This record gives sequence, C-alpha cells and structure tokens, in this order.
Amino acid sequence: MQRLNKLIAHITSRVNANLRPMGLDVSQVVETTLENINLIRYYAYYALSIDHPIYFNFQESNLGGSYFLGKCVVDRSIIHQSDVRGDELKGKGTKIMIGDVETELYRDEIIRIVNCFMIKTLVHNHSRNPETPEQFRILNAVAMHYSNIHGTTLEGAYIGPFATADLSVMHNCILGNFCYVQAGDLSRVYIDPGRIWIRKEHTYEFNYRYPQAILEKYVSWDQNGELSGLFVDFLKGRRSEFLPVYDSLAFDSPVPVPENAFLSRYSLVKGECSLGDNTLVAQRACIENSVLGKGCNAQENSYIVDSMLSDLVIVAHGGKVGHTNIGEKVFIGFNSFLQGTEENKITIGTGSIIMPHTIIHAKEPITIPDETIVWGYVATEDDLKRHSMALQDFAMQKNMNMDRMTFIGDGAAFVKDFQKRIEHILVDNGARFNGEKETRGHAQRTRSVSYNLVQPYLGGEKEGMFPTIIVDDS
Amino acid sequence: MQRLNKLIAHITSRVNANLRPMGLDVSQVVETTLENINLIRYYAYYALSIDHPIYFNFQESNLGGSYFLGKCVVDRSIIHQSDVRGDELKGKGTKIMIGDVETELYRDEIIRIVNCFMIKTLVHNHSRNPETPEQFRILNAVAMHYSNIHGTTLEGAYIGPFATADLSVMHNCILGNFCYVQAGDLSRVYIDPGRIWIRKEHTYEFNYRYPQAILEKYVSWDQNGELSGLFVDFLKGRRSEFLPVYDSLAFDSPVPVPENAFLSRYSLVKGECSLGDNTLVAQRACIENSVLGKGCNAQENSYIVDSMLSDLVIVAHGGKVGHTNIGEKVFIGFNSFLQGTEENKITIGTGSIIMPHTIIHAKEPITIPDETIVWGYVATEDDLKRHSMALQDFAMQKNMNMDRMTFIGDGAAFVKDFQKRIEHILVDNGARFNGEKETRGHAQRTRSVSYNLVQPYLGGEKEGMFPTIIVDDS
Repeated sequence: MQRLNKLIAHITSRVNANLRPMGLDVSQVVETTLENINLIRYYAYYALSIDHPIYFNFQESNLGGSYFLGKCVVDRSIIHQSDVRGDELKGKGTKIMIGDVETELYRDEIIRIVNCFMIKTLVHNHSRNPETPEQFRILNAVAMHYSNIHGTTLEGAYIGPFATADLSVMHNCILGNFCYVQAGDLSRVYIDPGRIWIRKEHTYEFNYRYPQAILEKYVSWDQNGELSGLFVDFLKGRRSEFLPVYDSLAFDSPVPVPENAFLSRYSLVKGECSLGDNTLVAQRACIENSVLGKGCNAQENSYIVDSMLSDLVIVAHGGKVGHTNIGEKVFIGFNSFLQGTEENKITIGTGSIIMPHTIIHAKEPITIPDETIVWGYVATEDDLKRHSMALQDFAMQKNMNMDRMTFIGDGAAFVKDFQKRIEHILVDNGARFNGEKETRGHAQRTRSVSYNLVQPYLGGEKEGMFPTIIVDDS
Repeated sequence: MQRLNKLIAHITSRVNANLRPMGLDVSQVVETTLENINLIRYYAYYALSIDHPIYFNFQESNLGGSYFLGKCVVDRSIIHQSDVRGDELKGKGTKIMIGDVETELYRDEIIRIVNCFMIKTLVHNHSRNPETPEQFRILNAVAMHYSNIHGTTLEGAYIGPFATADLSVMHNCILGNFCYVQAGDLSRVYIDPGRIWIRKEHTYEFNYRYPQAILEKYVSWDQNGELSGLFVDFLKGRRSEFLPVYDSLAFDSPVPVPENAFLSRYSLVKGECSLGDNTLVAQRACIENSVLGKGCNAQENSYIVDSMLSDLVIVAHGGKVGHTNIGEKVFIGFNSFLQGTEENKITIGTGSIIMPHTIIHAKEPITIPDETIVWGYVATEDDLKRHSMALQDFAMQKNMNMDRMTFIGDGAAFVKDFQKRIEHILVDNGARFNGEKETRGHAQRTRSVSYNLVQPYLGGEKEGMFPTIIVDDS
C-alpha cells in the first residue's frame, strides 16, 4: 500500500499548505477517518448515460464506493463512497451571464477534482465560477461525512461532516460541522458549526446558529476522534442495508416504476412503497413504507420512512424524513432531519419550505401550516412558533431578529428566490415532464443508464490504488 | 442500435473481403448467430492483476460477457462471452528465437483484435508471429462457439464451432467445425471439419479425421442455421448455471482453496469438491463432485464432473470430463469430450496423453493403460485399440496408418514435443510451485486479481456499443 500511503500524505500536505493561513491542520482528522474506512473493498461506478456527455479520467486515486456521472476528472484524490453527479453540467456553446457580462462556454463543463479527500460527499450541480466556467473545480479540499458540495468551486477547503457548501466560490475556507453556506464568493472564511448562512449581495442575508448543546447532540466528534451524535446513530446500520444492493449486478425493481419515473438500481426500497409519475429516487436514497406522489424527488442519501408525500415534494440531498405527512410542492432542504413517531407525527402544509439543515425532532405532534418557512431546531409546537413564519409574512420583512435567527434585507426577494429555485429543481429533475422532449429532466434522462464498475488493485505496492482509466466517447 | 448494426456490417465486410479467395461468405452465419445472442445484457470484465502489465484499450466494440487479462487492444469488434487471456504475453526485452535468429522485444507484447466477431472463444498464449513479435494480432476473423485461438496470429479467418487454431500463423484460412490445427504458417488453407492436424516441418505430421456421421452427431448446424449436436446438448442449461456467479460482486469461496492454488470467482463449484495445492480452476470452468489433486488445471470452459484427478492432471480449454478416474500427469487436450457413466467409467493411467479433440464416449467401461496416447473417437475398448498406442511404441514409429489416422515422420520427436509441452503447461500454470518466486505460475500470480466491469449503452443510437475505454497503468 506504499502508493496509497504516499497519496494520503500528498493530499494532506496540499490541503494543509492551503489552509495554513486559517491555522487548520487536517492530518489528524484524515488519519482517524481513514482508520475506520476500507479503501480496498468497494467498486467505483461510472454511469454510462445516453443523455449526458461522457468523459471520465482518473489517475492516482482511490474511488471506492463512489458514483460518477457526466464529465469528470479525478487526479490524486481519495473519493470514498461519494456521489459526483455531473448531470447539470453546462454544455459547450451554453451562454451564461456573469454579472452583466454574457459569455459562451467553449467546451463542455467538466468536474475536476484534484488533491482531495472526500468521504460520503455529494458533489452536484454546475459551478458558478466566473474564472473558468468550463470547469467545476474542487482542489485541495477535505470534505467529511455527508457533506454537500453543490455548485461550489473549492480551492482549499475543509468541510465538516453534514456541512453544505451551496452555489458559492470558496478559497481557503473552513466549514464547521453541519453548517450551511450559500454566500457567494468567500475567501479565508471560517464558518461556525451549525450556522445557516444565506447571503445575496446587496439584497439579503439570513443567519441562524444552532445552540451548541443541541448541535453536539446531533453531530460531534467523540474523544477518539470518531463522528458521533444522533445523525450518525440514525445512519448506523441503515447504510449496511445497502450492501446487497451493491453486491448484485442483477436488478429487479422492487416496486412498479411508472414509465416516466426513475428508481435508481442503487437505491433501497423497503416495505410497501409507491411511486407517482415523474418521480426520481436517486442512488443511495432509501424509501420505506412511504408513498411518493407525482413528481417527487428523493435525492442522494435521503431517507423517507413511514411517510406520505403529496405531489412535487422535494427531499434534497441528505434529507431524513420519518412519520411525516407532506403536502404538495413542499421543499425539504439539504441534510434536514424530520423525525416524527407513530404518536408524534409531523404534518407539513402545501407550499411550505423547510430550509436546509432544519431539525424537526418531534416530542409532540407538529403541524406546519400551508405556505410556511421553517428553519433551525424544532421539537415542539412552541419551538415551531419561534422557528417559522408564514411565507407572506416573511416576504414583508426587512430586518428581523427571532430567537437565534437574524434577517437583513429584502424578505420578498428571499422568498421569491427560494420559490424560483424550488421550481428549477422540479424542472431539472423531470417533475414537470409532460411528454414533450424539452420537459425531460433527470428522471427521464437517467432511465437508460448502465454502469462501469472499477475495482482497486488488491495487493502489492499499488494495493488500494485504482488503475488509470479513461472513458472517452466524444 | 444504428452504431451496432453498422459495426456488424463492417466486420462482415472485412472478413468477407479477406476470405473471398476462399469462396466463403460469413454474412449468413454471423447473422443467424447474432439472432440468438443478447448484445446488451452482459458486462465485460478486465482483470486488474498486480503481476501482469496492465493496458486495455477498446473502441467501437461490443464485448458483452467477455473477460480480458493483460495488455489488450480491441477495435471494431464483437467479442461475446469470450476469454482473452494475456497472462503469457512476452515482456519487453524478452529474447526470442525465430528459426535460428535471436531477437529482442522492444515493447511488451500486446493482443490486438481488430474487425473480429468472436463468440465464446478462448484467446490465449503469446503468438509465434515472426513479423511482429510485439503483437499477437487477430484481424478480420470470425471465431464461432467454443473455438480456441491459442498463440495463433490470424489475418483473415473463419473458425468453426469447437475448432482450435494452435500455435500457428494463419492468413485467410477456414477451419471447419471441431477441427484442430497446429501446423505452422498457413495461407489460404481450408481445414476439414473434424480433422486433427499436427505438423512440424521436416519432422512429423499427424492426421486424423472424424467420420462425418460421428462428427455430425456431436456438432453440426441444423436447418435453421443453429448449432446442434451432443456438445451443445451437454452445454445447454449448464451455461445458465453460471448466471448467479456473474450476477454477484461478492465472492465467498464454496470450497477451501489452498494458499498457493487459485479458484476463479467466475468458476462454478457444485457438490463436494476438493482442490490440491497449486491447482488452478479458471474462470468459466465448472467442477462438480470431483477431486483435483496437487497441481491440476481446470482451464476455461472445462467441465470436470464426478471424477477423480490425481496430481498434475491438465484439463485443457474446453475439455469435458465425466465419470473419469485419471492417473498422475495426464493431459486432456483442448475440447476433448470424455464422458463415462456410473456403470461405464473411464480410467486413464499415469502419464497418458489424450490428444486435443478426442471423444471418449463410453458405452462400456474404458481403461486406458499408463503412458498411452489416445486420439479420435472411442466408445468401446475395441475402438480404443484402434485409436491409441503406448507412448513408447508411438515413439518408435516412422510412418503409420491406423484406421483414420496417419502419421509420417519421427514418432519419438512427436512424443517428446508433446511431453515437453505438457511440462511447460504445468510450469506456466504454477503446478510446480515450491515456494520459490521463480516457480510461480498462473495459480499463484492470479490470486490478487480484481476486476473492472463495463456495460454497454442501454439505449439510443449507441445501444449495445461499449464506450471507448483506456486502462493504462504504465
């Protein structure tokens, strides 16, 4: 394993060199994490789609258990059980606006991951980097368990477990556990654990910070440097249920899948479930005893258990939903944790927005009215009052302070941007498919996908390294 | 499937163009064969070995169900459920003798398959082509079910089902069903079905030809252009037993495998079996209720059922052995069919040679004495007398004629060459491994192998085509 050990040292050195001004040394966290993962056992998956440009090139890397779709380059990186989805990369010739400048892509956009360590990370969406719109670049970065890198160029970064970097550009930034950032161009910024930060320049800024005690109950590092807390407890055991799914090459859909819907053969379906038209259940999503209405999304690493979803519900990457009844066109943001029980059900009204990284852990039945926005930590109806607002009330705010949340700027723009984005996600995922070609989305476009599977070397100096592979069908 | 249909037309045209002087048109046989195979369903396998140079490059091809090891290039070909084993390719710097000229390889030898259609074909061993020793070239060829291409450069060829081209160079040749050829440099030669032809220039020539009625009982084309006969009946059903083996990525060895032996995870083990030290059971080999002594080989497509093998027994590619007790260091040649029954067992004495393409289909118990060479068709002890000879008697022959066999030349050289080759096979496969590194063979060298699996496109214009893939770890 000499080559693999060299690779680990290489990545650590490059990330440390870049985060040095921030005073962070990732050696310890990388080392402890590596002790608990098996770098030999798992295959990497490259999805062979007929609807996306194909190019895959990886060198000097370990990719065990990871899934790639679209044009990707991986060099000198360890990408463990992660999902790198290039299904929204921009094609050659696409015109984009950068500020008020229009420019055109001279090549298909490509995801390029260099000198990175990622574990159970989601990489999705095209980047917003004005410097090189042809490249979604992730360089010199450590991304921990269940973090999301969503359309965010990274050049030097540490992203803590369950943290999300959304639609940004980051140079040498540190994101604490379970923080969420969508704040444009950031350089040398440290984002506190459990902070939810949404900022649009000259328009609005939303901030919430989880109380430390609550945060640590859900996610923290224990004394041995291992990840612990209720999120981890929730996932423990459940992840291993995916093993038979990954061990089999044959696939027999466990539920009827409507013609225009997509159920990934690498998803997990348990108990009685049903899928409406245009639904999308992504790889590593788990649905159990649940109904998904027309146009619903169960995105990567989401869990939907004992729940009823009306039409057009989005459960974004890492959302965990249990004993919840959800009205039409509700958005459940990244890594949200909505756990009711048989007695204490959660009910969410039509058109509501559950912001990314929201925790609703019901100690009593919780009912969220229609058209409501919810954030932060909610265990009771009383908590809900302090962590939610009717959308139309929010839209009228300029500046406000509510418990641990502050908002500055244009509430109407904030609500409108959110709703616009939700509609975009529905369209992109194919929820609005009406039979016309131009309304196709991921649910329709990913149906005819096959897979290339790659194993690492099993012994010798290269043990654990994957071979150099180029898939090129241009 | 437009691309795939174009490819089929392309291959047919190239093969026909080259075989035109021989008056053969392969269009019909290719078309009928394609009607009966699924070009979409199966993965291709590239073995990632730590003991063999790695290079794999395929373009514009369909490789479903095929297995590749070592340096291979495939271009514009359909290689269906075939095995391309480059584990005996010569390395850069190897000195070779071509006639009495010594020369050195300036690159690692590579298998290069271009414009070919192969179905369930075995390609093995390095080539003996004096023109380009760095390339084992197979060009413009159609190789049918269970044919063997063994160290034979092909430039224009049709190889019938169950036929073997062994250690030769062939330009524009036609090999009839179940013929076996090891005859040096051949150009524009038609080899009759069921002919066994071994020739060493200026030294000896062996010929046998199966009676047509017997041959057709075992292998023939029926009126619908489909392959039929007892060989096909034997394989029918048995091949589908491999499906679960191929559908699973997990592998739990069904029998104890000694530390220096190799049981391919793509072999099939049924009932009670045991493996001695240094044994090798290759992919697509099936062993059932059988004992394999120390250093035995069960090569690709071999079946060993209800049989006892003493030490150092070789069952070569495609050998089918049932109810047979085999003494030490016996060689069972390519595609031999040795079928006893509970009542009519076959017994083979120590040191005997069952020539390639021998059929022993016992109507009564058959006992082959020690040190005997057997060829042709044997159903009774009486047949055996007319199709075998003690090795020491054979070694004294110059010219002979026995039933349908003729031999001209030096009997001692013929026997000696055979025995030398058998010892080579044992060494190459690791049967002689004694713990010293230089005695390692395939059984030891293939233990740490992992796999890259590749699926074709599942829809659209490219349906059935595999993507261009390059694996390069030089």
